[in-house]
Amino acid sequence: MSFYDFAVPAYLQMLGSLSASLKKAEAYAASRKIEPATLLGSRLFPDMLPLTRQVQLACDFATKGAARLSGSEVPVTPDTETSFDELQQRIAKTIAYLKGFKPAQFDSAATRDITFPSGPAKTTTLTGQQFLSRFSLPNFYFHVSTAHGILRMCGVDVGKHDFLGAN
Amino acid sequence: MSFYDFAVPAYLQMLGSLSASLKKAEAYAASRKIEPATLLGSRLFPDMLPLTRQVQLACDFATKGAARLSGSEVPVTPDTETSFDELQQRIAKTIAYLKGFKPAQFDSAATRDITFPSGPAKTTTLTGQQFLSRFSLPNFYFHVSTAHGILRMCGVDVGKHDFLGAN
Repeated sequence: MSFYDFAVPAYLQMLGSLSASLKKAEAYAASRKIEPATLLGSRLFPDMLPLTRQVQLACDFATKGAARLSGSEVPVTPDTETSFDELQQRIAKTIAYLKGFKPAQFDSAATRDITFPSGPAKTTTLTGQQFLSRFSLPNFYFHVSTAHGILRMCGVDVGKHDFLGAN
Repeated sequence: MSFYDFAVPAYLQMLGSLSASLKKAEAYAASRKIEPATLLGSRLFPDMLPLTRQVQLACDFATKGAARLSGSEVPVTPDTETSFDELQQRIAKTIAYLKGFKPAQFDSAATRDITFPSGPAKTTTLTGQQFLSRFSLPNFYFHVSTAHGILRMCGVDVGKHDFLGAN
């Protein structure tokens, strides 16, 4: 049993399915003559974040989760994407980064103390085990699920199968 | 490092936060004179499942996940809830069930072959490791996130902090 197996494959599965769902969304927007920016700016509720930010945050939680759990430097990625193409590149870059890790890099993750920003002026310290289960995965799944919810609300033909990706 | 730690605390955290968010939703419905059934029947999109089903499914994925990973008999729970009170009882029953497990019951979970229904007329076999990461957790988080999205869309004052619960 490797700590790696509880983290990296989960991030990769959902980023792959998110990429595929966004391809469907782009084709849907084109076929219905919806401006891509309209779909990318859609939200479940006015004070929630739009689709673009949900995708960026999903990428961020995966990237920073893997970095912190493996004791690597945490990459900082500016949130500049404004098109489906650029979001696909962001996801592809995240997937490539995740695929660069070797399971052994996570061997001491469970007990490593991880201190991370948990609010605008707040940090929290958890063990790697707690960090993954209590913070990284719930946040990551929140943003991929919310992205899926926005696509559904906009009428894109994606279902639970697309959300889960290949099993 | 215990397999239990990757599964049961994650289910418990989110069911606790879901229960607290539903209490806010019930108070909100009362204060705005919204029929509870209206809120419980709300959906992100007409062909998605309503709030009540999202809660029932979150409970089910947690219950069945823990049962299958520990090699226990899989409980069958009828989906009869029609009120906030009944949904709270369903969540409380699920939490009590999960709290009944001991970490040692998951000691061979990672490599145990798990065969489970993955469609109306389909079963899938995965190792416990794969079952948790590829199927149980993504489905579980999907339903708690979608329940949260429905509450947000209905105007209930819950945010990411409520979604994550106590850290």
